[in-house]
Amino acid sequence: MNEAKTKPLSDEARLDWLRLIRSENVGPVVFRQLLERYGDPAAALQALPELARRAGGKRRIRLCSSAEAEAEMAAARRAGVRLLALCEPGYPEALRGLEDAPPVLAVLGNLAALGLSTVGIVGARNASANGRRLAGQLAADLAAAGLAVASGMARGIDTAAHRGALPRPTVAVLAGGADVVYPPENAALHAEIRRDGAVIAEMPLGTVPQARHFPRRNRLISGLSLGVVVVEAAKRSGSLITARFAGDQGREVFAVPGSPLDPRAGGCNQLIREGATLVESAADVLEGLGGLGRAERPLSPAAHALPPAAPRALPPVLSAPAEPGDAERAVIEELLGAEPIQVDDVVRQTTLPIAVVHGVLLELELAGRVERHPGNRFARLYKAPANPL
Amino acid sequence: MNEAKTKPLSDEARLDWLRLIRSENVGPVVFRQLLERYGDPAAALQALPELARRAGGKRRIRLCSSAEAEAEMAAARRAGVRLLALCEPGYPEALRGLEDAPPVLAVLGNLAALGLSTVGIVGARNASANGRRLAGQLAADLAAAGLAVASGMARGIDTAAHRGALPRPTVAVLAGGADVVYPPENAALHAEIRRDGAVIAEMPLGTVPQARHFPRRNRLISGLSLGVVVVEAAKRSGSLITARFAGDQGREVFAVPGSPLDPRAGGCNQLIREGATLVESAADVLEGLGGLGRAERPLSPAAHALPPAAPRALPPVLSAPAEPGDAERAVIEELLGAEPIQVDDVVRQTTLPIAVVHGVLLELELAGRVERHPGNRFARLYKAPANPL
Repeated sequence: MNEAKTKPLSDEARLDWLRLIRSENVGPVVFRQLLERYGDPAAALQALPELARRAGGKRRIRLCSSAEAEAEMAAARRAGVRLLALCEPGYPEALRGLEDAPPVLAVLGNLAALGLSTVGIVGARNASANGRRLAGQLAADLAAAGLAVASGMARGIDTAAHRGALPRPTVAVLAGGADVVYPPENAALHAEIRRDGAVIAEMPLGTVPQARHFPRRNRLISGLSLGVVVVEAAKRSGSLITARFAGDQGREVFAVPGSPLDPRAGGCNQLIREGATLVESAADVLEGLGGLGRAERPLSPAAHALPPAAPRALPPVLSAPAEPGDAERAVIEELLGAEPIQVDDVVRQTTLPIAVVHGVLLELELAGRVERHPGNRFARLYKAPANPL
Repeated sequence: MNEAKTKPLSDEARLDWLRLIRSENVGPVVFRQLLERYGDPAAALQALPELARRAGGKRRIRLCSSAEAEAEMAAARRAGVRLLALCEPGYPEALRGLEDAPPVLAVLGNLAALGLSTVGIVGARNASANGRRLAGQLAADLAAAGLAVASGMARGIDTAAHRGALPRPTVAVLAGGADVVYPPENAALHAEIRRDGAVIAEMPLGTVPQARHFPRRNRLISGLSLGVVVVEAAKRSGSLITARFAGDQGREVFAVPGSPLDPRAGGCNQLIREGATLVESAADVLEGLGGLGRAERPLSPAAHALPPAAPRALPPVLSAPAEPGDAERAVIEELLGAEPIQVDDVVRQTTLPIAVVHGVLLELELAGRVERHPGNRFARLYKAPANPL
């Protein structure tokens, strides 16, 4: 699906998009599978209880009611938040191409900021003064070259990157609700970003960010961006997770090096050893993006190609799930365990058609009996999980 | 030529090797060409005056006399310096493979140190305390893994590397004579290295190092080594020259990264961007050398393959120079100018056989009328040069 094919939803249709993604056990990938199988969210909502029941869900699946979704839409209007569906104009192009793009994105601020070519800048919360200075200068120079700077509004590098880019457009991707300022000292920054750029989130308004939300948020920073620059990151840090998402998503990964004696440089140095591009300045980043910004004017996404992995029609890699029979369901259930297994392996070992395997996994996921892991892998859940939203 | 084919020279033969390399306009490459054309140094010495005259040398070429060479050999004996010819056992294997390996090497200390697998560590003279600490630790760990550490005994990183390796074998490659301590404060270090490792040089004993000697010396550090580690180096520094030699010689290039805010890291970061391996520890270096030292015992050069570029028979890349006629000499002279030109280009533009081109260039070099530049390039000299030795 590209921009030319998008059109604004009616309020009624948007309500169904919101209801489906806010329903139990429905994540972005399941959402896309359901949309493909049933054509629109309303039909998918109708089918959900039966799908979940078939795979042995212990109790009736909890659907988001019209009243709940209407309340969220009303709260969004009051807060000045726009709820933007994946199929609508203005939804960020780069993000739309991801297989797990949020079906509905909450946007505070200027939609125009989401239409610019974007570079992510992320790094340590406990950043050094030098690291903050570097992040701020990189952001200022990249913004001056016409790029939007995306980050996570966390303490340290993220804050320095947003501040460096302002008053030019910068995009804050929040792990909680778009209206929830975290950390609290960034209230003024939150206000400035919504004035000069945009604050976005996939969680419902009012959601207080929790640890499990951060990896999901990080995939949006990289997903929005042509490339991600990591400035100061320890080994085994959240910034490295963002960098790995970026690599998996076909984005450029850049890292600012540092002395081996500085533990805050360990993650960046490791990324460089693994193939990330060493950068010391915005010029290095622009060169790594193929001379973007050389023209010294704002560039629209249309002005250059995204990496081939990015702008794909929906659904990107999944074949349409087919209706499975009981025997097939049993064979696949038997195969799944606590250790995540790749869908390809399930297909190979069962010799079932991939569409049937996807059909069974879709039902099991909706029933809360399997959990999806990165890399199209699935593990059995031995207890019914809480609603992840 | 490999170790098995080498044999010690008689004192008489060594005298001729020394006379030939100490004669005017004879550098290591010309030495090899002469050896190949005339079979041994004595015959080459006889032919030199006529070769130089043919190419229009303004005055008779100055040969090193037997008396001068005997005086150098006597001085070497008194100083405990061994003069080792390229064709003799004990000459470092890795070095022997270079097209411009010194025909005669002065060695103070233990020949055994030259038989170990070697890693070069080089860097800034005005190194930071952290840089010295890193260089020392790298050297200590590499030496503990059984490798000899080669460096240039300069202030800063070089000194720290030698000190870190001691009392395990380390090799100091001097730009002046093997007996000339420079910088003066390193007198104690010089003594320790000759006791526990080796000090080597290609210049005559007593030569005080000058700026123009350093690039020549740097090629020996990398030539001795399987790889070179650069610790703290500014852009456009001598350490980068060593790193480029290492790359040209087919050696691994390693660099320790640093903050973009630290000017002493600029050269290392640039090397990494150009493809050098980022290293933070000796383990990274050992991994980059293909697991060398994993066995935690001293490794002889025979225990693993050198890079393919290294261990070549003499002469490595030059076709034997042929005797040219006057017309061919005139055509080639006409083509040469102040800007260095590649031998390949001379061949292409004149359509003369490469052996004839080499023959003319050999004569012109001996006549002091052309100068050899790195990368097999030649430039016309418009004034007779001073004897470079």
